[in-house]
Amino acid sequence: MVAGNFKSGRSLRVLGIDPGSRATGYGVIDKVGNAITFVTCGVIRTSPQKEFPARLKEIYDGISEVIDKYQPGQAGIEDIFTAINPRSALKLGHARGVLILAAMQHGLPVREYTPSVVKQAVAGYGQAPKEQVQQMVRILLQLNASPSHDAADALAVAICHANHHNHLR
Amino acid sequence: MVAGNFKSGRSLRVLGIDPGSRATGYGVIDKVGNAITFVTCGVIRTSPQKEFPARLKEIYDGISEVIDKYQPGQAGIEDIFTAINPRSALKLGHARGVLILAAMQHGLPVREYTPSVVKQAVAGYGQAPKEQVQQMVRILLQLNASPSHDAADALAVAICHANHHNHLR
Repeated sequence: MVAGNFKSGRSLRVLGIDPGSRATGYGVIDKVGNAITFVTCGVIRTSPQKEFPARLKEIYDGISEVIDKYQPGQAGIEDIFTAINPRSALKLGHARGVLILAAMQHGLPVREYTPSVVKQAVAGYGQAPKEQVQQMVRILLQLNASPSHDAADALAVAICHANHHNHLR
Repeated sequence: MVAGNFKSGRSLRVLGIDPGSRATGYGVIDKVGNAITFVTCGVIRTSPQKEFPARLKEIYDGISEVIDKYQPGQAGIEDIFTAINPRSALKLGHARGVLILAAMQHGLPVREYTPSVVKQAVAGYGQAPKEQVQQMVRILLQLNASPSHDAADALAVAICHANHHNHLR
């Protein structure tokens, strides 16, 4: 999994998404053979002063822009079903809904990964704390600095997806 | 609120939405002055055999088709925050997210109404049972037959929105 260790010419560009109604992390990596390399990452922040429908459009437009610009071939999104109350779950659901829709509309298949599967993929431990995920993402992608939590989580989802799809389509 | 009792030439076409990940009801009514008339109603059903992302696209495409065809000027959507578990709330959130997005993308302002406000608007009682809502919608819109529960709920949301917007924009 060391960047630059090209075993095959076949490449896959993966978009990872860490959804949130206030901040949605995204991360894009390339996988060539068994090697992964960093492409970009960032956070789509919504305007707190805007009404919720307008914020959903910001999330949708934000991820659509990322997809248009970086043209990933597959996507992974974090799947959260536990430990949140119904109201938070409903809000998060809205954000995930428009994110998944944006991917679908761009012809991008989306897979869902639970937080523990994502943590296992990057840190070898399903209960790893956020800081460890951040640190491992930095190491695996040979970054000079740690990305923000949301962006690191999104990159972790992308790495997780890349690991789960060894047989490229 | 009797259909045909035109007090003003100003008219408003309202789309009401009762969101669901399996079945989303929609209803369209016209309000002219204080009179409301039925335009259409129906249910967008998703394919149970399809994966969730594909079903979200069915919901989005379905409501977009309704908006394109009937060109409502405003929309109301049922707002549910109570009595459901986080997993159901999350699923419902996804459906509501893409429905609100579709309305936004068509330049359609969306207002949210809790079930009790909707029931109050059509049945005069916030805890009215589904059957009573169905019956009142049939009476208020002078329909020959009762629409299905989902479609009746959506028409009730449309009626509720029309009542709350006496001052047309």
